Amino acid sequence: MAGLRHYLPILNWGRAYDRHAFLSDGMAAVIVTIMLIPQSLAYAMLAGLPPVMGLYASILPLVVYALFGSSRTLSVGPVAVVSLLTATAAGSVASPGSPEYIAAVLVLALLSGLILLVMGIFRLGFVANLLSHPVISGFITASSLLIAASQLKHILGTQAQGHTLVELTPSLVGGLGDTHLPTLAIGAAATAFLFWARRSLAPTLRVLNVPPGIAGVLSRTGPVMVVIASILVVMGFDLGARGVAVVGDIPRGLPPLSMPVLDLSLWIALFPAATLIALIGFVESVSVAQTLAAKRRQSISPDQELIGLGMANLAAAFSSGYPVTGGFARSVVNFDAGAQTPAAGAFTAIGIALASLFLTPLLFHLPIAVLAATIIVAVLSLADFGALARTWRYSHADFAALAATLLVTLGRGVESGIIAGVAVSVLLHLWATSRPHVAVIGQVPGTQHFRNVRRHDVVCMPDVLGLRIDESLFFANARAIENVIQQEVAARPELRHVVLNCAAVNSIDASALESLELVMHRLDDAGIRLHLSEVKGPVMDRLKRSDFLHHLTGDVFLSHYRALEALAPSMTRRPQAIV
Amino acid sequence: MAGLRHYLPILNWGRAYDRHAFLSDGMAAVIVTIMLIPQSLAYAMLAGLPPVMGLYASILPLVVYALFGSSRTLSVGPVAVVSLLTATAAGSVASPGSPEYIAAVLVLALLSGLILLVMGIFRLGFVANLLSHPVISGFITASSLLIAASQLKHILGTQAQGHTLVELTPSLVGGLGDTHLPTLAIGAAATAFLFWARRSLAPTLRVLNVPPGIAGVLSRTGPVMVVIASILVVMGFDLGARGVAVVGDIPRGLPPLSMPVLDLSLWIALFPAATLIALIGFVESVSVAQTLAAKRRQSISPDQELIGLGMANLAAAFSSGYPVTGGFARSVVNFDAGAQTPAAGAFTAIGIALASLFLTPLLFHLPIAVLAATIIVAVLSLADFGALARTWRYSHADFAALAATLLVTLGRGVESGIIAGVAVSVLLHLWATSRPHVAVIGQVPGTQHFRNVRRHDVVCMPDVLGLRIDESLFFANARAIENVIQQEVAARPELRHVVLNCAAVNSIDASALESLELVMHRLDDAGIRLHLSEVKGPVMDRLKRSDFLHHLTGDVFLSHYRALEALAPSMTRRPQAIV
Repeated sequence: MAGLRHYLPILNWGRAYDRHAFLSDGMAAVIVTIMLIPQSLAYAMLAGLPPVMGLYASILPLVVYALFGSSRTLSVGPVAVVSLLTATAAGSVASPGSPEYIAAVLVLALLSGLILLVMGIFRLGFVANLLSHPVISGFITASSLLIAASQLKHILGTQAQGHTLVELTPSLVGGLGDTHLPTLAIGAAATAFLFWARRSLAPTLRVLNVPPGIAGVLSRTGPVMVVIASILVVMGFDLGARGVAVVGDIPRGLPPLSMPVLDLSLWIALFPAATLIALIGFVESVSVAQTLAAKRRQSISPDQELIGLGMANLAAAFSSGYPVTGGFARSVVNFDAGAQTPAAGAFTAIGIALASLFLTPLLFHLPIAVLAATIIVAVLSLADFGALARTWRYSHADFAALAATLLVTLGRGVESGIIAGVAVSVLLHLWATSRPHVAVIGQVPGTQHFRNVRRHDVVCMPDVLGLRIDESLFFANARAIENVIQQEVAARPELRHVVLNCAAVNSIDASALESLELVMHRLDDAGIRLHLSEVKGPVMDRLKRSDFLHHLTGDVFLSHYRALEALAPSMTRRPQAIV
Repeated sequence: MAGLRHYLPILNWGRAYDRHAFLSDGMAAVIVTIMLIPQSLAYAMLAGLPPVMGLYASILPLVVYALFGSSRTLSVGPVAVVSLLTATAAGSVASPGSPEYIAAVLVLALLSGLILLVMGIFRLGFVANLLSHPVISGFITASSLLIAASQLKHILGTQAQGHTLVELTPSLVGGLGDTHLPTLAIGAAATAFLFWARRSLAPTLRVLNVPPGIAGVLSRTGPVMVVIASILVVMGFDLGARGVAVVGDIPRGLPPLSMPVLDLSLWIALFPAATLIALIGFVESVSVAQTLAAKRRQSISPDQELIGLGMANLAAAFSSGYPVTGGFARSVVNFDAGAQTPAAGAFTAIGIALASLFLTPLLFHLPIAVLAATIIVAVLSLADFGALARTWRYSHADFAALAATLLVTLGRGVESGIIAGVAVSVLLHLWATSRPHVAVIGQVPGTQHFRNVRRHDVVCMPDVLGLRIDESLFFANARAIENVIQQEVAARPELRHVVLNCAAVNSIDASALESLELVMHRLDDAGIRLHLSEVKGPVMDRLKRSDFLHHLTGDVFLSHYRALEALAPSMTRRPQAIV
């Protein structure tokens, strides 16, 4: 039972569910539903899909996440960045709008769901750590620019193609002459209003004596106001007939069941993109969930989140949806509106289901340009150019990873961008740890302490060299240690003993062990013995499993002082005599 | 002048050059030349090239390395593993023996020379650290098996194709019916003699009262004895006419100048392979050079080695050679024969030049099967199956990297093998560091020391949580720290202060800083202040360049005790009163 409860968090919170929680969750669900209707349509469009698939992706996945998710307030569904990744991946194997395209999208949802599930079951969430903050920051900023650029054609009423800024820009500029003015008027007005509403609607409402809580929630309804107003304008002036692109006929009804195709070559082709969707979605989702949980001193389980998100994506794959994850804006609205448990998500699903049953005819006249404006305003708030300057000031290496991700994403696309960023950050990290600090140490006179000869006034012997290594030893720094020891030894013709002080060495991998053996043999060839001092317990346990200690030309000493007592008795006695 | 001397080591050792060094170097050169003639022919054949190109690659590159190399005794030229890499890379763009194939090989030498040179000038040698010992060990073992398998067809006198064991095996087995018995007889006899000579020739000679030094050198001449004997056998029985493949006509004369083609698409296609050749060659070469230098308490400069090897490869590219590096066997012979300075390499070049001017007609009747036997015996001594068991015992993670490299190299080829091995070792290293040790610490009563509550009898306060982080903070472990803090906080409802003890934190990268800010905001939302204690100087300097300290909800304390004095005065006073 405890095991089942671990994998089905609903068994915990469900037992304490009461009227108060029901009312709070229900109210939050109403507000989130209203916000989600235009957002779901818009993100489906961004993913190159019929708008109704955005609604479908906001029904069953939410119910399933409510059963398996560990966050109480995360709101799952279509989000901007994952929609862009979906469009890029599906666009590489089929043309948008075709049945093959929709088949590819369902396979993406299935694969990313399976990947998340496997990662959750085998507790592989750490793989997401490869995406460092600078890489994610650069990726989000680049993606938001790419998304905004991809939506400009809808505001202008022109045609444009491409998944990178390099492809999009000439296409957009070339199409400027064909700009459709009524579409531009609606799109520009909607964009301007949404920008204003995001920044100034809440303060304005507060000046008008609306209570702050209600003002906060109302200020999030900007997109809904624009949707209603633009539908009325299009209907009133019959702009649909004058060439303003509208959403048109949305099929009414609940999501039809879908079955992702079993095409191995398609699965293999989409696997890398599905991995990326799974990782990016997971990282974003966990970050939002943790932030919200902390506000109420709750905690989430990252491994359980993998399972919750994985199941939600499987649900999307079998109910005509597309890849989903926990969204920032929708989760914050859910939290602010007072959601207490994951049931709020299930209630939202009911709301969206009702909307797709009864509301879709009303959306016939909704201009595409307004959906594009919704997307542009939402994603541009994600772009963080300040991070460039902040990161540069703090660390040039992190800046390099951020800049590489940003530039490669813009120029070569989302997958190349992430790969470049991860490669740069891993390489720079290995570079940073490849030159460990190694200090020549000598005895502080009259004590049993040994310190760096460069910083302290210490005593050394010509025939004993003490070296303190200030880093765990592994493949990236193993050869650097070889070089340092070789150089220090070459400079001391009278040397007979080298003592490595290992107090700061937390682990030694096989590469470093091999290097130590090499160093030992080289020292032996030169008539010098190698000793170790202050080796930590776990490191010693591991060394005992190799032949190293059998071959060791010297001894292992408990403390550096004892090593000196044994190897240079005159030295340890003399300073003590002075004292 | 000092700068020039840095880049031209000959300016150092050349000034002290005397008659004694000249005689030692000359004697070593004679012995190495005799050994190199069959070896150079054999490795060129392994690389899919006319045998004479092996001689060409042993002339100018050696002279150039003598000018630029930092090792006194390294012997540069064709080696087995690099020959295999060359064959694989050139074979992927042209068919062996064609003019395009030779053009590709010259481009490989040029590119790997340029890559080494650039790495040397910008001191990028650390990139080679990505090749951990287990990866190299697995790669060498797999390569030696691949090379031996690729030579079996010459011993059998059959045809076989392929760059992986998966391709080679069926091809070899299928050709068994066509085995040419005279060829097999010569090949098998040569292989058996060479195996015996490698293990037992030196002891046998010593039993016959040959002085140990001369016995050691003579035992290396096994391949030369086989070459001479087999030529006499082939001539005596006219086996060439009976279908035993022989080397045939080798053009006489010095290496013709060559000009690698300027074909951008070819350069791009060969770039990854050239990088691999450069890195593998560098790693092997530096390891040999360092081992030999240590025996005489000399030291080498890895960055200067990059320049020396880079120039040697450029020389190969422009003198009809192919990629070269420092070889293990040849360098050991050079060292044992008494070489004192890089001049020995230049004298060897003169020896090989004389051989290619006057000796090549004598090699007409040399059987290909004998060259194949030379290769098989040389490479099988490189295979180290014991490393599998040793590494498994020492560390399962390192074993995984070794096994991945070995299996992927055998099954999918050399490039895939190296890439798989590096990916596995980097991932496992990041995984190992992604779960840092974090201890909840409390005060040892009556002292100013704080220790892990799980291991020691210490005092804690309900409203102050002390956490000691035992690792530098970077992207791979940043989120783990977030999780640990969040869990510890969620378990303590009365908490008001969290103090992070940073005594073991050597650095904090931008990802970890972002995580700390997130943690701080989350704690703040829950009414908890975040403090730091015992922050190291360099870490503090870097934090001051960010906004973190301005936002910090708590304080930075010099010692953990001072933090407790300030935050929980009752606690620090009480235990002292007891004492």
